[in-house]
Amino acid sequence: MSSDSKLKFGRKVISVEEARSLLFEYVKHTPIESVPLSSAFGRRLAVDIVADHPVPHFRRSGVDGYAVCSKDIEQATPEAPVVLRVIERIPSGTVPQLTIQSGTAARIMTGAPVPDGADAVVMLEMTDSLQDAGTSSYHVSIKKNVTAASNITPIAGEIGLGDILLEQGTHIGPGEAAILATFGYSNVSVYRQPRVAIFSTGSELLNVAEALQPGRIRNSNSYMLAAQVEAAGGSAVIMQALSDDVEEVEAALQETFPKVDLVLTSGGVSVGDYDVLVDVFGRFEGKLLFNKVAMRPGTPTSAALWNNRLLLALSGNPGASFVGFELFAKPLIKAMAGCRSPYPKAITAQLDVDYDKGSAYPRYVRGTTDVDNNGCLKVKPSGIDKSSIMVSIKDADCLIYLPAGGKGFARDERVIVYPIQ
Amino acid sequence: MSSDSKLKFGRKVISVEEARSLLFEYVKHTPIESVPLSSAFGRRLAVDIVADHPVPHFRRSGVDGYAVCSKDIEQATPEAPVVLRVIERIPSGTVPQLTIQSGTAARIMTGAPVPDGADAVVMLEMTDSLQDAGTSSYHVSIKKNVTAASNITPIAGEIGLGDILLEQGTHIGPGEAAILATFGYSNVSVYRQPRVAIFSTGSELLNVAEALQPGRIRNSNSYMLAAQVEAAGGSAVIMQALSDDVEEVEAALQETFPKVDLVLTSGGVSVGDYDVLVDVFGRFEGKLLFNKVAMRPGTPTSAALWNNRLLLALSGNPGASFVGFELFAKPLIKAMAGCRSPYPKAITAQLDVDYDKGSAYPRYVRGTTDVDNNGCLKVKPSGIDKSSIMVSIKDADCLIYLPAGGKGFARDERVIVYPIQ
Repeated sequence: MSSDSKLKFGRKVISVEEARSLLFEYVKHTPIESVPLSSAFGRRLAVDIVADHPVPHFRRSGVDGYAVCSKDIEQATPEAPVVLRVIERIPSGTVPQLTIQSGTAARIMTGAPVPDGADAVVMLEMTDSLQDAGTSSYHVSIKKNVTAASNITPIAGEIGLGDILLEQGTHIGPGEAAILATFGYSNVSVYRQPRVAIFSTGSELLNVAEALQPGRIRNSNSYMLAAQVEAAGGSAVIMQALSDDVEEVEAALQETFPKVDLVLTSGGVSVGDYDVLVDVFGRFEGKLLFNKVAMRPGTPTSAALWNNRLLLALSGNPGASFVGFELFAKPLIKAMAGCRSPYPKAITAQLDVDYDKGSAYPRYVRGTTDVDNNGCLKVKPSGIDKSSIMVSIKDADCLIYLPAGGKGFARDERVIVYPIQ
Repeated sequence: MSSDSKLKFGRKVISVEEARSLLFEYVKHTPIESVPLSSAFGRRLAVDIVADHPVPHFRRSGVDGYAVCSKDIEQATPEAPVVLRVIERIPSGTVPQLTIQSGTAARIMTGAPVPDGADAVVMLEMTDSLQDAGTSSYHVSIKKNVTAASNITPIAGEIGLGDILLEQGTHIGPGEAAILATFGYSNVSVYRQPRVAIFSTGSELLNVAEALQPGRIRNSNSYMLAAQVEAAGGSAVIMQALSDDVEEVEAALQETFPKVDLVLTSGGVSVGDYDVLVDVFGRFEGKLLFNKVAMRPGTPTSAALWNNRLLLALSGNPGASFVGFELFAKPLIKAMAGCRSPYPKAITAQLDVDYDKGSAYPRYVRGTTDVDNNGCLKVKPSGIDKSSIMVSIKDADCLIYLPAGGKGFARDERVIVYPIQ
């Protein structure tokens, strides 16, 4: 048997977990760059964010009302209100100029700093102003007592100086954006988006803009994979589809490796006469990491290291390509972009249909989840009643993991699913 | 009571559903534009996508092997194989030149067109080639019978001519991208991303790049809302934060309305002396749609129509602003961008903690979901043990709906949650 034949037929099968371990030995973060906060949404932090000031950094009023000495109003009731002299107005964004002493109060707005001397704020609704509130000095009648500290958030009441707010690797969404803005990050250190080159192989492939021809189909995997790359936080570079010519494929790959962080191919990895990636692996100078994974679909999924860059070679079948991306490429891209827990999270769901196909290898079935009226997560294979794999890819929101075994799975059995996020 | 005072204190409360109905009377799709498919991910289709050709458009081989007349090999077994003359090789992407007649076969690759005359394909593994397969004519020994139609996908076996594949309004993800590519959509008609101007109001607000000052805080809501706008499919325009000066605010709003599809403000809608949006509504020439909604947080959430553009005025409190966005602004933006079911989907979950706060109005509590080992969806309020609303916004993946009532809710009660997606 030639070494070529060994690659095709004598492959060593490894588990999905082993395949991931082999790939992850070669994952490096992309370089760090600084981007404006408003362009950082969806990116991942390259640094921890630590509170360099407490929040609030002043004693903050939680309500509109009057800042007072709580002792002054201990006896206040609607029938016997306590009257205080208003010595100042404190809108939000201003700083109190005067100190509250017994017998005085300050009109204060929500979010404004509580003046020295005051230890409580009385809500506006519990007061009556006794003269035109527009004059510089007037009196207020307090109709209810409040205890010390009422309606005041103390300094550091929300966030302490030195608190770790966000860890390196955190995905920047709305809540993270609010924290970054609060702490003055008009620019944010993030990892550059991983650049991912996408090749589809096969002489039958037409460009999307080309008219249909007998025996040929348009290249759809490249666009599917590009959308997956972008959902994973990468930047997709769709390359010209390649023919089944081994020298052409090898040259295109070698030219592309230095320019990107990851190369994805789809097609050309099984055992047909024209499975060109197999032939490239048979002659190339890099390191073949694996070429057979114990999984359905996508058993011939392969990977190699070439000039220190990873090549992940997915099956050409659209469903297998989709699943292989989710299992291997998405975690790689997320990890390169800084994510600390890049693997899909396993959760439990109840199978909502019988699934009577056994398999010698674990299956990763594209699934669609739903929550029933009891709050139970149900799942069924996507497009179970559609004949086209390609059409039903859009309906998948998870992968259903079905362990290897001969008998299939019954409705209501609990299964592991990996949400696609 | 002046009309100003009426706006502040005499507000008419309406339900969340009524508020949405009022807003949605004025929703219009953004204009349609054509963008390259590779830039269309995340956008929404402005047209239905109908199959203008069947898939496959030729009889397609599902395996590598030999195209045969099934009648010829009815008796084939490993012990008594049937020998056929191979008259052609058909790689993917080529068109067969010859017709298979009794006694002949064609070597065919996965995905290639099955030649006329053949009605089945035999897998390579069930055959032996009897001479060097590289020669132009050789014989193959077939060791197993296959029935007619085996391993052939008929024309339209996956997708029929005229099938509706994707409906107008569909979000373009990986599966949709594959369909669009297959049908030649190198450019796609989508709705322009809704432009959303974001104003925060309050004289206490500093720009993110500014150093902290006594009594003042940086503007964080604008960035939180911008991230929410982009997650909803809009294009966020962060405007300079506004002071509490009513003329400044009115002028800024009027200048902005013609340039965008929606204006969001945060702050200035409650009843304090400096709640500037209230004052703007008291004098402005547009139509006030509502200024009090039966919900916590965010009761003073307001909306107006001004020169045919919608203004949604959210509370300034970060938590209320976040919730108000999800309940009102996100559906608006999604609908403008073409989404046909823009409201968050209600699902059932089990409350994982006691929640002992009753409320005169329905509450929409920021929540964090998890799935337990039985596949049950659990939910608890986000940041329940953190004092800062702002810090815990990042932990929310849903809103928990708690109906109005005095007694709160017990652990394990079933509640409605709206996932944030």
